[in-house]
Amino acid sequence: MNLHVVGSVALDSVETPQSRRDNVLGGSAVFFSYAASYFTGVRLVGAVGEDWPTAHTTLLQSRGIDTQGLVVMPGEKTFRWKGKYLPNMNDRETLEVHLNVLERFDPVLPADYRHCQFLFLANGSPTLQMKVLDQVHNAALTVADTMDLWINIQHDELLQLLRRIDGLVLNDSEARLLTDDDNLVRAGHKVRAMGPKFVVIKKGEHGAMFFSQHETYVMPAFPTPDVVDPTGAGDSFAGGMMGYLAERNQFDPKTLKEAMAYGTLVASFTVEDFSLDRLRRIERPDLERRMDEYRRMLSF
Amino acid sequence: MNLHVVGSVALDSVETPQSRRDNVLGGSAVFFSYAASYFTGVRLVGAVGEDWPTAHTTLLQSRGIDTQGLVVMPGEKTFRWKGKYLPNMNDRETLEVHLNVLERFDPVLPADYRHCQFLFLANGSPTLQMKVLDQVHNAALTVADTMDLWINIQHDELLQLLRRIDGLVLNDSEARLLTDDDNLVRAGHKVRAMGPKFVVIKKGEHGAMFFSQHETYVMPAFPTPDVVDPTGAGDSFAGGMMGYLAERNQFDPKTLKEAMAYGTLVASFTVEDFSLDRLRRIERPDLERRMDEYRRMLSF
Repeated sequence: MNLHVVGSVALDSVETPQSRRDNVLGGSAVFFSYAASYFTGVRLVGAVGEDWPTAHTTLLQSRGIDTQGLVVMPGEKTFRWKGKYLPNMNDRETLEVHLNVLERFDPVLPADYRHCQFLFLANGSPTLQMKVLDQVHNAALTVADTMDLWINIQHDELLQLLRRIDGLVLNDSEARLLTDDDNLVRAGHKVRAMGPKFVVIKKGEHGAMFFSQHETYVMPAFPTPDVVDPTGAGDSFAGGMMGYLAERNQFDPKTLKEAMAYGTLVASFTVEDFSLDRLRRIERPDLERRMDEYRRMLSF
Repeated sequence: MNLHVVGSVALDSVETPQSRRDNVLGGSAVFFSYAASYFTGVRLVGAVGEDWPTAHTTLLQSRGIDTQGLVVMPGEKTFRWKGKYLPNMNDRETLEVHLNVLERFDPVLPADYRHCQFLFLANGSPTLQMKVLDQVHNAALTVADTMDLWINIQHDELLQLLRRIDGLVLNDSEARLLTDDDNLVRAGHKVRAMGPKFVVIKKGEHGAMFFSQHETYVMPAFPTPDVVDPTGAGDSFAGGMMGYLAERNQFDPKTLKEAMAYGTLVASFTVEDFSLDRLRRIERPDLERRMDEYRRMLSF
């Protein structure tokens, strides 16, 4: 089934305690779509500037990602993010953000993108996310991500958005901020009470939690000794999850749980190198092998 | 099979963001033995002062805990700990420590305690832990806990201890400190390389990790919305784990994994009230019911 993602496309500069990379391929829509591409075709909607290396577009296309919705805006520069990870590799500081093209990005979906079954609104302002929703007809499943910035400065708009989507994916500190509750189990259900049918709280190296009316569960991260760069882990998680749902063309509780596991595993590969470098070296059978290990790990 | 624990017996004063309790029953050996008592008989070795309420001893005995090794030392006061939890309920500050009787505690095992099959050395100085080891003959399984203090001030003694025990249980920050490695997967195996056949890293609300030569796995904490007081969670975890191993009288990989799960679940009850208050209201069938939920949560 078709899967759309609207989000950022970026050039990232990343410092870790061991190493660094400058101006590498990044952005929420990029990690999402690459992760989803192991499962299904993906249509990417985003914007870049004239400085965008076309090789990056070619790479995405080589994975079957439809980049018709990736607009190169004349006179603009690509969004850039620069960050530094603390020694624990779970927390990071943002050193620089240059919104560039994102300051003027106003996504207009190509005509044949307006009927979409599975839609992911990657992190962006709730106003912009709702503009996308206004253009989409009859999506079967709409899931969004958000961040602390929007919780703080577009609180009302975020609450409006929450009443219009099926699922929300956010990280633990954001869930605590949004609900003013430090207990993540209560926080998850409080976010759900704001509108979405299900909520996923990402906990970085500690995995992810799922909340729906009848279910509360935790999936631990796959334990890897090789954490090189956590950038994109959350978006890869969402991409793996939504990609699997789109592949299966359903989102009943059982399929959602399998999707959470696939999201977890794609993310566990993402963090094993910078940018998309680790994902570029794996194929679906590598995911399935790790899934076998993961299932064994969780059964007793 | 018989299970022995040597550790602290305390009167705790605990502040949480919501509430507080003063001078309630606590201590590593207390939480451990109460948790283990759902599975097996336990012999507790520890010391208290003249201020010790005998009702506490009666409570432990009511669970079948053998308190013959609990010495009341004349002229002494019981160990007291006072702590305060941060709003996240995972981190805490120690406000006051009065070692009292523990300053002079030099455990001498009763003669019929010297043959023990399963031994847990709760947190204490490695010197003291090794003194206990010297008195025990032919233990089938010896597991110890430790803490940052000993890693810092008795480093060499701790390394000696590690070569003499089968398993070590410690928390995530302690594992990082001991190995100077922030990645917990690597840290777990580095601790194992120091001697013990297996290592358990406790991650508080995020669960626990297990490391042996052939296995690495994570078990998430059971998600409870009712975290009232995390004090004793780690010791209850160890008590549930060792209690189950002693009940089954084996510690092959399969049994160890089940034991990790039971430890996780006993701890999930412990945190739902102050001191032993929540554990006092449950029986083995409550653990089994939560185990069914936990198994369902982890299967997909």
